[in-house]
Amino acid sequence: MLFQVRMDVRIPHDLDPIRADELKRVERERAHELQKQGVWRHLWRIAGQYSNVSIFDVDTVQQLHDIVSTLPLFPFMDIAVTPLCRHPSSIRDDDR
Amino acid sequence: MLFQVRMDVRIPHDLDPIRADELKRVERERAHELQKQGVWRHLWRIAGQYSNVSIFDVDTVQQLHDIVSTLPLFPFMDIAVTPLCRHPSSIRDDDR
Amino acid sequence: MLFQVRMDVRIPHDLDPIRADELKRVERERAHELQKQGVWRHLWRIAGQYSNVSIFDVDTVQQLHDIVSTLPLFPFMDIAVTPLCRHPSSIRDDDR
Amino acid sequence: MLFQVRMDVRIPHDLDPIRADELKRVERERAHELQKQGVWRHLWRIAGQYSNVSIFDVDTVQQLHDIVSTLPLFPFMDIAVTPLCRHPSSIRDDDR
Amino acid sequence: MLFQVRMDVRIPHDLDPIRADELKRVERERAHELQKQGVWRHLWRIAGQYSNVSIFDVDTVQQLHDIVSTLPLFPFMDIAVTPLCRHPSSIRDDDR
Amino acid sequence: MLFQVRMDVRIPHDLDPIRADELKRVERERAHELQKQGVWRHLWRIAGQYSNVSIFDVDTVQQLHDIVSTLPLFPFMDIAVTPLCRHPSSIRDDDR
Amino acid sequence: MLFQVRMDVRIPHDLDPIRADELKRVERERAHELQKQGVWRHLWRIAGQYSNVSIFDVDTVQQLHDIVSTLPLFPFMDIAVTPLCRHPSSIRDDDR
Amino acid sequence: MLFQVRMDVRIPHDLDPIRADELKRVERERAHELQKQGVWRHLWRIAGQYSNVSIFDVDTVQQLHDIVSTLPLFPFMDIAVTPLCRHPSSIRDDDR
Amino acid sequence: MLFQVRMDVRIPHDLDPIRADELKRVERERAHELQKQGVWRHLWRIAGQYSNVSIFDVDTVQQLHDIVSTLPLFPFMDIAVTPLCRHPSSIRDDDR
Amino acid sequence: MLFQVRMDVRIPHDLDPIRADELKRVERERAHELQKQGVWRHLWRIAGQYSNVSIFDVDTVQQLHDIVSTLPLFPFMDIAVTPLCRHPSSIRDDDR
Repeated sequence: MLFQVRMDVRIPHDLDPIRADELKRVERERAHELQKQGVWRHLWRIAGQYSNVSIFDVDTVQQLHDIVSTLPLFPFMDIAVTPLCRHPSSIRDDDR
Repeated sequence: MLFQVRMDVRIPHDLDPIRADELKRVERERAHELQKQGVWRHLWRIAGQYSNVSIFDVDTVQQLHDIVSTLPLFPFMDIAVTPLCRHPSSIRDDDR
Repeated sequence: MLFQVRMDVRIPHDLDPIRADELKRVERERAHELQKQGVWRHLWRIAGQYSNVSIFDVDTVQQLHDIVSTLPLFPFMDIAVTPLCRHPSSIRDDDR
Repeated sequence: MLFQVRMDVRIPHDLDPIRADELKRVERERAHELQKQGVWRHLWRIAGQYSNVSIFDVDTVQQLHDIVSTLPLFPFMDIAVTPLCRHPSSIRDDDR
Repeated sequence: MLFQVRMDVRIPHDLDPIRADELKRVERERAHELQKQGVWRHLWRIAGQYSNVSIFDVDTVQQLHDIVSTLPLFPFMDIAVTPLCRHPSSIRDDDR
Repeated sequence: MLFQVRMDVRIPHDLDPIRADELKRVERERAHELQKQGVWRHLWRIAGQYSNVSIFDVDTVQQLHDIVSTLPLFPFMDIAVTPLCRHPSSIRDDDR
Repeated sequence: MLFQVRMDVRIPHDLDPIRADELKRVERERAHELQKQGVWRHLWRIAGQYSNVSIFDVDTVQQLHDIVSTLPLFPFMDIAVTPLCRHPSSIRDDDR
Repeated sequence: MLFQVRMDVRIPHDLDPIRADELKRVERERAHELQKQGVWRHLWRIAGQYSNVSIFDVDTVQQLHDIVSTLPLFPFMDIAVTPLCRHPSSIRDDDR
Repeated sequence: MLFQVRMDVRIPHDLDPIRADELKRVERERAHELQKQGVWRHLWRIAGQYSNVSIFDVDTVQQLHDIVSTLPLFPFMDIAVTPLCRHPSSIRDDDR
Repeated sequence: MLFQVRMDVRIPHDLDPIRADELKRVERERAHELQKQGVWRHLWRIAGQYSNVSIFDVDTVQQLHDIVSTLPLFPFMDIAVTPLCRHPSSIRDDDR
């Protein structure tokens, strides 16, 4: 099942920069791993923003929550989840 | 270049149903065609809504506008365009 | 999987009252049926509004969309879908 | 009487983590207790958010306020209360 | 139990004026009756608006909904319900 | 003249708790006093919120502002003022 | 007492143009009259909008409501009322 | 040319009170001066808020910006500018 | 003086198409004329919308209003005006 | 390709003033450079705000993002990007 997730990152300016860098580094690793597993199917930057739009492919809502809520930057992100399904006019098998 | 486009369809209830059906039929044909050309890269239904989220892959903003504004249902849609670009943590060549 | 769905009904005042009554009658039948099947798990009226809050229990997002988008009043409702999952502090087996 | 309560938790990043953990621990205990009493009837996590949707079953609005406003995380939550009542199409005796 | 109810009246300009007047007449009668019963405790006009703010005193949420949803102008009103309870600094016995 | 005033209290979590308690204590005293004078006619807690809805009965807008803006918690409150007047359907002499 | 009133005029496009012109003519006469009486103290057009910002000088909120709610275009206006009072830094006697 | 300017003052609670008082003192002096020059034509307090509504009479937009952006409290204010012009129904020569 | 003006066109679907076309034709002529005069300095389409963003160069706010409010599509547009002035970092003489 | 970018600067009051000044100095240099290259085509101040409206002329969305996201004040700005294209009524070759 596909879910669109928008994440707007808002790191407080008084957060320790070393901690912030470490969080971002682990976030990147986690994103790589989840993309390789096919769970994080798409990942785009929104132009001009510290934000991304992603498409997740998960078996359950629970799995989606477990992934998103354990991202290192989770406490510093505004997150919006939109459940998607097949569009009757789609011709791509992949756009389930 | 990739753009996320969200379209919320709001067909007035007093629109002639025959005209509405014809608009939807041509819209579907146009969507098929643009998907085959690779311009309309993804097309998903938003669950529980008469809305879609799409990813368009175009050469220019002008091309995007020409496509979207000539869709048969354009006069009856609220449309939001979000320009996307490559995310530094993406590992898919395709997510330009 | 559980989804909270809020439906705000907005029937245009110039809709034929006989058609409106027929839509409501079929809507009620459909609601009964889906509750009996266990898919429409909870159904509450929001006090002072022509609106309801519901909990659906479905196997896929697609199933949720197919149910909601074929309700007779669908064209006259504003609908908001919120995916739910188990809360770590929940003690009810049923609140998956 | 049933009330839907949505709680969005916003713990400031500079709150002492030991105090935060203690608040969460007591909050969990309090949630268990109130669920056992039948007052906190449902408790779900909103997917991708540090938020919950709950259904409370109380005798008075005052009782609802006394419960919610004494939760340990109350000072760090945005709370929205929606009074519910029986839906004419409901077939579950329990959805009062 | 007390509930604040705000009602914003939006009568479509193409509603038959005779029907509109009849609806308003019955609405007024119903308001008188409910005030006499003590259920509709306060009723104020919001200055410069076709809107009112009211305080209802009811035994249950269900009773509140039954009253509000059967007002003749209900289909033409935007309604917001706010549950109230005793304020710890209140000194009026009446402000339960 | 009657004004509805909604006050949402937002005390910063890093405010000195002793100062916060002192502000609340003086606020309570001031509320008692103004209720006794008949100026602060009604005072209700909004269920589930650190907020109140009040009705003030003042001779001038200036008097209203002088009262509200000198409340000890004024710097920590979001305040919304709604001027009220007699509703043509009211039957209570008191609801001027 | 001074009140700022913003009026946004939204005349439905299918209103009979002769009726619309008559409403505007009477509205203009009423505005002249009220300005001469000193009640409608200021009247400005908002640039680029079919809207005005006005300052009314009235003895009571009731008087304000009676004036605004009997304007011929009242049913076709969105109206926002803001109560004003003397600013401590004002040096104009007139800006009560 | 006239511009309506609304200023909502939001002084952070952890700003040094001596600096805050000094900013307010200079702001008051600057307001007096600009009122005497006729540039700051009207200045009202919004009742119940730490906000003002003002009318500025300037020769150019640049002059307006130079005045507003050099006010001592400018960094702590949310500001909304509305360009005004003569209303066709105005009878006051002064309401240009 | 420069003003940014955003115009969102919302032509009702039941407007006579011949009248709509005539309005658009005259609107286009008027836009050409005002661009030639240098008053309508920039005119861009917003991609995916029936909207434009424009920069007007006028001597007074009144002139701006007279131009915008006499455009043939004015009754069918939502319009937002933003007064602009020289940016201290600008190096173009033309961006007054 | 043209993009309208609005930047609202929100520098926290507790940011070190020397660092803030240095960020602004480098921002100004960067703006000069990008204007000379023709990439930052227009730059206006919004009157009464610490905000600007700009028009960027870039070859790709990626280039736009790379420019905007490396501005020294980027972490302290709310940014809104609007893709523009040629308006059919434009007569300026330059307003691509």
